[in-house]
Amino acid sequence: MTSPSNDSATSQPSLSDVPITNEEIFLAHEGGKLSVELRSPIDTQRDLSIAYTPGVAQVSRAIAAERDLVDKYTWTDRLVAVVSDGTAVLGLGDIGPRASLPVMEGKSALFRTFAGLNSIPIVLDTTDPDEIVETLIRLRPSFGAVNLEDISAPRCFEIERRVVEALDCPVMHDDQHGTAIVVLAALKGALTHLGKNIGELKVVISGAGAAGVACAKILQAAGVPDVVILDSKGIIGGHRDDLNEFKADLASWSNPRELSGGAAEALAGADVFLGVSAGTVAEEAVASMNADAIVFALSNPDPEIHPEVAAKYAAIVATGRSDFPNQINNVLAFPGVFAGALDADSRRITEGMKLAAAEAIFGVVGDDLAADHIVPSPLDPRVAPAVAKAVADAARIEGVTK
Amino acid sequence: MTSPSNDSATSQPSLSDVPITNEEIFLAHEGGKLSVELRSPIDTQRDLSIAYTPGVAQVSRAIAAERDLVDKYTWTDRLVAVVSDGTAVLGLGDIGPRASLPVMEGKSALFRTFAGLNSIPIVLDTTDPDEIVETLIRLRPSFGAVNLEDISAPRCFEIERRVVEALDCPVMHDDQHGTAIVVLAALKGALTHLGKNIGELKVVISGAGAAGVACAKILQAAGVPDVVILDSKGIIGGHRDDLNEFKADLASWSNPRELSGGAAEALAGADVFLGVSAGTVAEEAVASMNADAIVFALSNPDPEIHPEVAAKYAAIVATGRSDFPNQINNVLAFPGVFAGALDADSRRITEGMKLAAAEAIFGVVGDDLAADHIVPSPLDPRVAPAVAKAVADAARIEGVTK
Repeated sequence: MTSPSNDSATSQPSLSDVPITNEEIFLAHEGGKLSVELRSPIDTQRDLSIAYTPGVAQVSRAIAAERDLVDKYTWTDRLVAVVSDGTAVLGLGDIGPRASLPVMEGKSALFRTFAGLNSIPIVLDTTDPDEIVETLIRLRPSFGAVNLEDISAPRCFEIERRVVEALDCPVMHDDQHGTAIVVLAALKGALTHLGKNIGELKVVISGAGAAGVACAKILQAAGVPDVVILDSKGIIGGHRDDLNEFKADLASWSNPRELSGGAAEALAGADVFLGVSAGTVAEEAVASMNADAIVFALSNPDPEIHPEVAAKYAAIVATGRSDFPNQINNVLAFPGVFAGALDADSRRITEGMKLAAAEAIFGVVGDDLAADHIVPSPLDPRVAPAVAKAVADAARIEGVTK
Repeated sequence: MTSPSNDSATSQPSLSDVPITNEEIFLAHEGGKLSVELRSPIDTQRDLSIAYTPGVAQVSRAIAAERDLVDKYTWTDRLVAVVSDGTAVLGLGDIGPRASLPVMEGKSALFRTFAGLNSIPIVLDTTDPDEIVETLIRLRPSFGAVNLEDISAPRCFEIERRVVEALDCPVMHDDQHGTAIVVLAALKGALTHLGKNIGELKVVISGAGAAGVACAKILQAAGVPDVVILDSKGIIGGHRDDLNEFKADLASWSNPRELSGGAAEALAGADVFLGVSAGTVAEEAVASMNADAIVFALSNPDPEIHPEVAAKYAAIVATGRSDFPNQINNVLAFPGVFAGALDADSRRITEGMKLAAAEAIFGVVGDDLAADHIVPSPLDPRVAPAVAKAVADAARIEGVTK
């Protein structure tokens, strides 16, 4: 099981120096990755009479009389449902709810590992936004928060908005905001290292899906004055007549220099390239960026440009992969974000809480900041507690707690 | 926490000799009774790359190509959803989904404890049968079996029937069939001890709710020739013009002597009294039963007749309580029934599987059979494996496996 093999898990064995075999991966998944356990064992008749009948009736009666006691006497107060319809799973696309389950179990495992939260995967055999929203409303008493996951764009924008409106609990589509939070944290690290000012940046985002839209919005909120977004047809702007409502919104405030064209036109003289597509970017375009350029090529498993090639032109390079420096991994954000929101009894996850999360991730890097260490390691145990505290504080300041 | 107190959990402290305090019960419920844990820890970058990206993509891809692999590589194959709308919780009635949650967590804890199964509580903020069925259809890929729980009659009959029809997995409303299985097991024990024949019995059932209807049906299936069922208005039979469709069905095959009246008329000369109501039965009525009478007074926490009073007239007395001999507790049935159904990859839980479960529970009593030991203890670790084996064998014999 631990012997190396050429049967690599990724499509680019040459990029990987971790010899994980398919055999090892499948063996680790047999029977699933999660289990439900008791917090106290039921060994005796007394235990049984407390945890089940007749004792449990006292607790049910108390909650029936005072509904908020459900937070104190059930697991839901610290339970995140990881909800997917399987329509945009990793880079695999619409593979359905069953095939998405290993990813959702992994996500639940990360909630436990990094934030000590309970989490259950809920995968839905419907892709209809009305049905997804309706189902989560009906399930509401079963959990304390909802992490929407791997739902395709642009459906994910409407679904998230409606679920946030309908439920009085923290809800976040992680593909959007988890990515955006970590990207902002990493950008703060890069700018600090380079001595650059966020208020003077030209940022180009390749990809206008879930991650691209959320990254654009958080960067705008963080003070980036010039964001240009590319979709598969080129630069998004007022000159385009083929935009859906979400891209039309982007066009209304991004692309201040009214560029048209593609990546070559967008990247000439830009400071930051952020790739969140499944595409590629030409070496020449990256070469045309400003001095001390920053390249975040986050497509997985194949970055938009090989990091060694990008490094010929950019001062700082990050990817989504664990086998290169500066891994931009959502796991830096979501466990702490949900833990903080639940700690504070927040009714929602606000923009301010997301910005606070990014600042907290950046803060953990501290004195270790370097060109090849702009974000903490995904395994750094300091991150989730720091994020949770910052998020909870922000929730209280914003007055969104119950 | 362990010091005795007079602050008893039951409404009849005089009946209880287990000094469990309310304080102890509430303390044991703080934060809930369940947790979701990892089957293997994520400690290293390698662990992370296997359980989450990029490794997990291999598993998702495999399931996308061959859907049945979801049983092998996720937790759903051994996962029971405990589903309630909170409309008939214990003896507390319609207290809603939130207040029902401690009971459902307890149930999930028992699935783990006795059968090693994963189980999650799903409580629904709807009581509409159409919406409940529809929601479970949408959730189907999230679990491997459904234990319907504490859903009020007569809604529970329609909901169970429709969920069984809609889902290709084991589904059972435990309030109905769990109770019925254990009642039949206990009756077999009582009859064996007394040397009586099930084919000559006159059985009176007080209560025509979920448990009463299911008990009547399983006793009929097991060969009891004379079942008389009482609801709050008296004996159910052809003379009644106020019966819903479920009670009309009972009337069509029960009450062969065409009795009318109430408990007094029903019990005169009867062999078995089975109480599954929240009511009481008069001492005089029990006194009018046949020699070697059997009384199962299962109402909780207050049996239909005090077991010491019943014992003046009956050869064998059982209750639902842990502080008297012969506790009829569903936990003897449901963990093994679901484990067996899942072990055999059964598409459903048939009548034959339920009868096999009852026989298996009875079989565990073996040489210990006595008037005060007609069923095993709820904590007997031999029961669930024996039930699981019998149920799995029955599923294979009946050809309902996948």
